[in-house]
Amino acid sequence: MSLFDEIKKEAAATQKAARALAKLPASLKNRALLAMADALELQSSYLSDENKKDLGAGKIKGLSEPLLERLTLTPKRISAMAYGLRQVAALPDPVGEILGMKRLENGLQVGQMRTPIGVIGIIYESRPNVTADVTGLCIKSGNGVILRGGSEAIYSNTAIAGVLEAAGTSAGLPAHSLTLIKTTDRQAVYELLKMEDMIDVIIPRGGEGLIKVVVEHAKMPVLKHDKGLCHTYVDEGADVSMAEAICLNAKAQRPSVCNAMETLLVHRKISDQFLPHFADSFQKVGGQIRGCEITLEILKDSIESLSAADESDWCAEYLDLTLSIKVVDSIDEAMSHITRYGSQHSEAIITRDHLRAMRFMNEVDASAVFINSSTRFNDGFQLGLGAEMGISTSRIHARGPMGLNALCCTKFIIFGDGQIRE
Amino acid sequence: MSLFDEIKKEAAATQKAARALAKLPASLKNRALLAMADALELQSSYLSDENKKDLGAGKIKGLSEPLLERLTLTPKRISAMAYGLRQVAALPDPVGEILGMKRLENGLQVGQMRTPIGVIGIIYESRPNVTADVTGLCIKSGNGVILRGGSEAIYSNTAIAGVLEAAGTSAGLPAHSLTLIKTTDRQAVYELLKMEDMIDVIIPRGGEGLIKVVVEHAKMPVLKHDKGLCHTYVDEGADVSMAEAICLNAKAQRPSVCNAMETLLVHRKISDQFLPHFADSFQKVGGQIRGCEITLEILKDSIESLSAADESDWCAEYLDLTLSIKVVDSIDEAMSHITRYGSQHSEAIITRDHLRAMRFMNEVDASAVFINSSTRFNDGFQLGLGAEMGISTSRIHARGPMGLNALCCTKFIIFGDGQIRE
Repeated sequence: MSLFDEIKKEAAATQKAARALAKLPASLKNRALLAMADALELQSSYLSDENKKDLGAGKIKGLSEPLLERLTLTPKRISAMAYGLRQVAALPDPVGEILGMKRLENGLQVGQMRTPIGVIGIIYESRPNVTADVTGLCIKSGNGVILRGGSEAIYSNTAIAGVLEAAGTSAGLPAHSLTLIKTTDRQAVYELLKMEDMIDVIIPRGGEGLIKVVVEHAKMPVLKHDKGLCHTYVDEGADVSMAEAICLNAKAQRPSVCNAMETLLVHRKISDQFLPHFADSFQKVGGQIRGCEITLEILKDSIESLSAADESDWCAEYLDLTLSIKVVDSIDEAMSHITRYGSQHSEAIITRDHLRAMRFMNEVDASAVFINSSTRFNDGFQLGLGAEMGISTSRIHARGPMGLNALCCTKFIIFGDGQIRE
Repeated sequence: MSLFDEIKKEAAATQKAARALAKLPASLKNRALLAMADALELQSSYLSDENKKDLGAGKIKGLSEPLLERLTLTPKRISAMAYGLRQVAALPDPVGEILGMKRLENGLQVGQMRTPIGVIGIIYESRPNVTADVTGLCIKSGNGVILRGGSEAIYSNTAIAGVLEAAGTSAGLPAHSLTLIKTTDRQAVYELLKMEDMIDVIIPRGGEGLIKVVVEHAKMPVLKHDKGLCHTYVDEGADVSMAEAICLNAKAQRPSVCNAMETLLVHRKISDQFLPHFADSFQKVGGQIRGCEITLEILKDSIESLSAADESDWCAEYLDLTLSIKVVDSIDEAMSHITRYGSQHSEAIITRDHLRAMRFMNEVDASAVFINSSTRFNDGFQLGLGAEMGISTSRIHARGPMGLNALCCTKFIIFGDGQIRE
């Protein structure tokens, strides 16, 4: 059997399962999720053993320390996966929710009901917990799921998916509700992307290379989870200690992720007051600054880890403790900079001025716009969705953190008592 | 300049316009739509003259009478376009609507705000009124629009788009808010489909061939407007006169459209009572029946325009006065038939039984599910959206009639007072 036919057979089985899943009551889906959570914890040592095979191979392959760290499954992380599944079980079932039923002039009652999408494909890199997070969300929302993880996590992902599937099926889920693609052959990705008759939407989570391949080759709709080149704008008159705390958090709490700040924009009128103290604090946590001319002028005597920013710095997603800083003359200049260089991911303003806060909220085009808070909150757990598939940077269907509702579509439902069209 | 570069230049101009459009107040957008409506009516005779060029060319090309009929712009139809624009002007602005603002434990307030998608591309066939309908919806929802109509309507579409653009720009819309692709070169479609950096979503409205080309070649997301193989199921115990009126309406009121019924499913227990009278009425309006064995048995003595259905009839979108009829033993058999042969467009049940009505609503997977009403209501005007871009058969973003909300995406908005992530 060709690789295409092999994968197609699995995808067809998941599609069949999805049709049954779509009709399952929440009670059964929740029971399955809780059984999956218990099974992960019960089989914690088996999962750790399989994970060690990945870690061993990773060391031989020369993966970096941060990558190996992300790949590691500790008992605590396994419990966190279980906790995530239990949280999703506790959320309301999105399927069947009816949105805004209205009565028309002719007496028809018209509304929209949430329904599962069908089969969700996800192609992801690195962290094995994604396997459990994504499965939980897809099952809860009545969707089948086809998972293709990174080759560096193949033993871990296979073990997790195996435990989840066995527990789910025992609890009454249709067989093949989740399918992990077990070959590490890169060609499998291309084969998956051809199966528009069986996979309703594909979600790439990973680096730019992966996303480019998926957008280029997918025959089905794609929901991108792209990079984040995020800004924080400190407005004139802002509370400087609030601004400092938020900016340090947005940049330094976890610099390697997509919702971390990359460029700080500061109004000229507050720059003398704000920048020296902030830069000093940032330097103390290991920060490096690339500043515009005015920034250099303000900081040159007090800050060592300082160099001149050039055009490439405004375009850089550093993903480390490097920060570019630009002093601007107005909120308009700040928003123009964001429009020009931003990736429409997470954008924040720190301000006391209501009108400027509202302008920023209305006019800045991004998956999440923050007022007086850290861009690091652009995350499904943090924004109250209970969990997330990732952060969509697409402009259709779902934008920002994708929770259960974003894994559903709707259908119109119409109640009549004999209406016909004139 | 190559065709690609030429179209790219136009698309880039529309993208620039879209960024300005996104920020326009409703008052200005509405003023522009009303000015467009007035201009269409004022220039009615110019539009008719241009339309006659299309009709003349169509006759030489040998277009069928129904196609020529659809292509014709009468003063009444021009007024209908103007009326449509005025209706859209009267609808609330979807942009800026905030959906469900919630307060989280840490005090953050989180909601989602509707925003324009950006640039909408639409590739459509035949009826020139689509040019005005689509432009109105896109402008109102703050989107730029790139239109590619059928070559048979090129004079009409060019005239309509010209009148709309001139009136819109005079009223204050950014130049190039709408762009009609004026070449009839088929290659232009392929060039458009490559412009994922400038067109955020593409909507094909037309035959299967067009949709296949678009899905195959588009680099940007596609919202399909596919065919309709729609069923009506007459349940046991249904009100037979209601059932007859609805079935005649669903099939015969306008058989050439996607929401017309193609297959009638009848419960065995009501078939003797329902079918003879319905078939007689249907025959009187020119209907032809392809029946299953039981249908033939019931109707063979009374109905002339009757023949045996084979497998191909269950798969047929006749788009004329032909109807296939199958007698079934249960709602389960009816729903299985719909799952197997339906195109998930518009599906109806005629019943008095509440539990079966609810099962049909919950379990049938289609863009619109009707209880005791005609499938012909699957239409944006009819379902109270004010207007429509068409009827989406996609499983993401929007399903069923696409109105103003379906031309928007959302962004998360977060109000804080200094929150940082732990």
